[in-house]
Amino acid sequence: MSDSKKTFRPKARVAKGFRDIDADEIRGQREMLATIQRVYESYGFEPVEQPFIEYTDALGKFLPDQDRPNAGVFSFQDDDEQWLSLRYDLTAPLARFVAENNQGQLPSPYRSYRQGWVFRNEKPGPGRFRQFMQFDADTVGSSSPAADAEVCMMAADTMEALGIARGSYVMKVNNRKILDGTMEIIGLSGPESFERRLTVLRAMDKLDKLGESGVSALLGPGRKDASGDFTKGAGLSEIQIEQVMALLLNKSRITQATGTEYSAAFAQNKLFVEGFSELRAMESIFVSAGYGKDRIKIDSSVVRGLEYYTGPVFECELLMETKDEDGNTVRFGSVGGGGRYDDLVARFTGQSVPATGFSIGVSRLYSALKLVGKAKVSQTLAPVVVTVMDKDRQGDYWKFVQQLRAAGIRAEMYIGTSNMGKQMKYADKRGSPIVVIQGGDEKAKGEVQIKDLRLGSELAAQIETREEYASQRLAQVSVPEADLVATVKKMLG
Amino acid sequence: MSDSKKTFRPKARVAKGFRDIDADEIRGQREMLATIQRVYESYGFEPVEQPFIEYTDALGKFLPDQDRPNAGVFSFQDDDEQWLSLRYDLTAPLARFVAENNQGQLPSPYRSYRQGWVFRNEKPGPGRFRQFMQFDADTVGSSSPAADAEVCMMAADTMEALGIARGSYVMKVNNRKILDGTMEIIGLSGPESFERRLTVLRAMDKLDKLGESGVSALLGPGRKDASGDFTKGAGLSEIQIEQVMALLLNKSRITQATGTEYSAAFAQNKLFVEGFSELRAMESIFVSAGYGKDRIKIDSSVVRGLEYYTGPVFECELLMETKDEDGNTVRFGSVGGGGRYDDLVARFTGQSVPATGFSIGVSRLYSALKLVGKAKVSQTLAPVVVTVMDKDRQGDYWKFVQQLRAAGIRAEMYIGTSNMGKQMKYADKRGSPIVVIQGGDEKAKGEVQIKDLRLGSELAAQIETREEYASQRLAQVSVPEADLVATVKKMLG
Repeated sequence: MSDSKKTFRPKARVAKGFRDIDADEIRGQREMLATIQRVYESYGFEPVEQPFIEYTDALGKFLPDQDRPNAGVFSFQDDDEQWLSLRYDLTAPLARFVAENNQGQLPSPYRSYRQGWVFRNEKPGPGRFRQFMQFDADTVGSSSPAADAEVCMMAADTMEALGIARGSYVMKVNNRKILDGTMEIIGLSGPESFERRLTVLRAMDKLDKLGESGVSALLGPGRKDASGDFTKGAGLSEIQIEQVMALLLNKSRITQATGTEYSAAFAQNKLFVEGFSELRAMESIFVSAGYGKDRIKIDSSVVRGLEYYTGPVFECELLMETKDEDGNTVRFGSVGGGGRYDDLVARFTGQSVPATGFSIGVSRLYSALKLVGKAKVSQTLAPVVVTVMDKDRQGDYWKFVQQLRAAGIRAEMYIGTSNMGKQMKYADKRGSPIVVIQGGDEKAKGEVQIKDLRLGSELAAQIETREEYASQRLAQVSVPEADLVATVKKMLG
Repeated sequence: MSDSKKTFRPKARVAKGFRDIDADEIRGQREMLATIQRVYESYGFEPVEQPFIEYTDALGKFLPDQDRPNAGVFSFQDDDEQWLSLRYDLTAPLARFVAENNQGQLPSPYRSYRQGWVFRNEKPGPGRFRQFMQFDADTVGSSSPAADAEVCMMAADTMEALGIARGSYVMKVNNRKILDGTMEIIGLSGPESFERRLTVLRAMDKLDKLGESGVSALLGPGRKDASGDFTKGAGLSEIQIEQVMALLLNKSRITQATGTEYSAAFAQNKLFVEGFSELRAMESIFVSAGYGKDRIKIDSSVVRGLEYYTGPVFECELLMETKDEDGNTVRFGSVGGGGRYDDLVARFTGQSVPATGFSIGVSRLYSALKLVGKAKVSQTLAPVVVTVMDKDRQGDYWKFVQQLRAAGIRAEMYIGTSNMGKQMKYADKRGSPIVVIQGGDEKAKGEVQIKDLRLGSELAAQIETREEYASQRLAQVSVPEADLVATVKKMLG
């Protein structure tokens, strides 16, 4: 190694689009994840985990948002030249797992859940990272709308278990067959219409944001927004626009309709009728299980990406208000979604294996919980710090620490031999509630000093020397060594 | 897309060297990890997590086992041509994090812990995967042997908290300065002696396995094993071998020695004397804190790889017996290790930031806990299955399920409308303790049937029809609907 190489100093920086996670977030999410686990377990779902890396061909290209041009995966070649990829979601690896263990190893239907980091090789943005955590639940092996309905009800229960009040969230349910049927009805079903179909679905997805006239404009020639920017529309004819808007706006009529209440064009479309009937079956379960429209409702504007889903699709929306990137007040929006994906397993085996699932965006849900004050604030108190007054008596200080820990109190000895000022600053920076001090005088009397930093933390930061410290007697007691643990316990309340 | 592409069917197989993880392992490890967290928190360590992907130059090449020829990392180029790598351990990313937040953002010393998956681009073998989990604790910012000693004591406490009895584990402690000093003493310190140094250290590492004569042979010309295979030795002279063996075999003398008790060559070597004095400082803390040699002991054979460590090194060895790959009875061996790495942060900033840490191999420790029967067996019972006798009354069955869940009992409705035989087989495969049945007759009487599958599980698998089932009344009761929850609770005990 040359000298110039020896002094190469890489810059210490986290990679673009990645981030470090601090103690508060780790502890807060740990509690949140445990709550989700508890609800999913109560529904009979079992944990299972797939590895982070899969063969690229096994993973496939089933990004739910593959319509975004820069969507991508991190891939690399193995030493036997096979391509490997980091998982971009938890669904594609589950499909591989089920296809690989499809000879009766798993119960059918198979209910499972998993939490884990996934990776997208995309341009990062504000709040948009290339590594993020998902929490998924899936039921494989049942084509019944009951499986879809169950996942929706479980998602609703999860929101309430996390402290999100009824009325502050809603599970919105739609069916891809209804959307695909509508595309057939307006003559946009062929592969040559892929781009226009995308434009139509994106326009539908914006009903909440742009209202009826905004969506109509995007279905037609296009729309100029407040800033004057023009977005090209799908260029549909008036009658096409009318049909799409009929679907989009008559949400309640569709869900309550009998066969005769929607137009002939819809009634004659096989896909539409199938999708409609699946939605009705789900709705009837919601009603009988007591999940009202304040918790789960049919909504024809739910799209959930173009690829991947084959039947019911759902989205969990939080209704509380927050600010968007431009400072406007908006609904918090989606914290998770999912749907039925009957083709993901079949692509390995050729045999149809129906499946449906729901995926939570963990960071996003955690942000929501913080916003409404429902993220569990960590109960973990910073440790008691036992200071080192006399470096030759470290053994004594270790014993104090051990006694405190044995009583269930977080405690640490100051490591090293800095002066008392530095040790007090350290305790302050740590947010320690209490410091324990024993100098030679105390030792001679068999006593320890115990100081409550929460009462005197402003002062503590300014104390530089042992002498200054000794003169400052606020919130401080001297007790016999034998009373150390009891006194600290009492001070901590 | 062409027709031939449409019918491409990738083989569903987990990637080479990776694996799926089942419910028992996930639940068992969850409990194990929570116990480790609890001990580390009690010592005042705080959780922090770095991302899975780092810039390759920031990660560096500090694999602790870089002396293995095929050691490697998974790397790929970003769209701005910078190289990214999957982390191969949790220490290198922590060093980057500390170097990036070294302007007073962190307390000093900074105690932190983290658990996470790491990746090695290596040839997999039996029980050797390319993705595995580590659980690390590190103290950054203290050069005091007290920091090293604390980590060792915490590791010992962790083993006992996990149920590994005193006497079944030992923390073995050595110091790299002692090894490096010895290499200087025998004239093998230069870069030109890298390979021979490696051979010497590997030989020392094998004392437990090969005994004194085996190690001597490997230090000299070489050794023929039982199968007749010859391993080339380091080719040391007799006097060199004598010096290495003096270090290796006089473990206790070294730890109790005063300056005059070891040979002049050792006493005059600066590195050796420094390492020796650090070990003595650690030992004095172990003594005063009450950690005897049955828990933590000095052992000159501990090497812990060639790269990376700069001072004390430690290894946690489990002493219970197991079988090795060849079926021989051996000690379980190492479940974790660590040491001081004072140069990892400095390589970014040029400023020395002393650091020490301990890393647990999570899968390996979990295997050990299973071996000694201390892995927590999951308390999670399989769910009660509510069968669907009458597909038009799914609402009723949902309500039963909801009532059970509300009482804290895992419960699921059979999804779909298969016949009773299939539903019973499903419940049996799930390991369900209890099934709930309500046909038309029961409904008319306002009753439900509750069947304890644990009492009749052998029979259940053979029941094909509702009629057969009805005739088999073992471990089964009919109760009013209102008594469903209470009866199930009673049956579950």
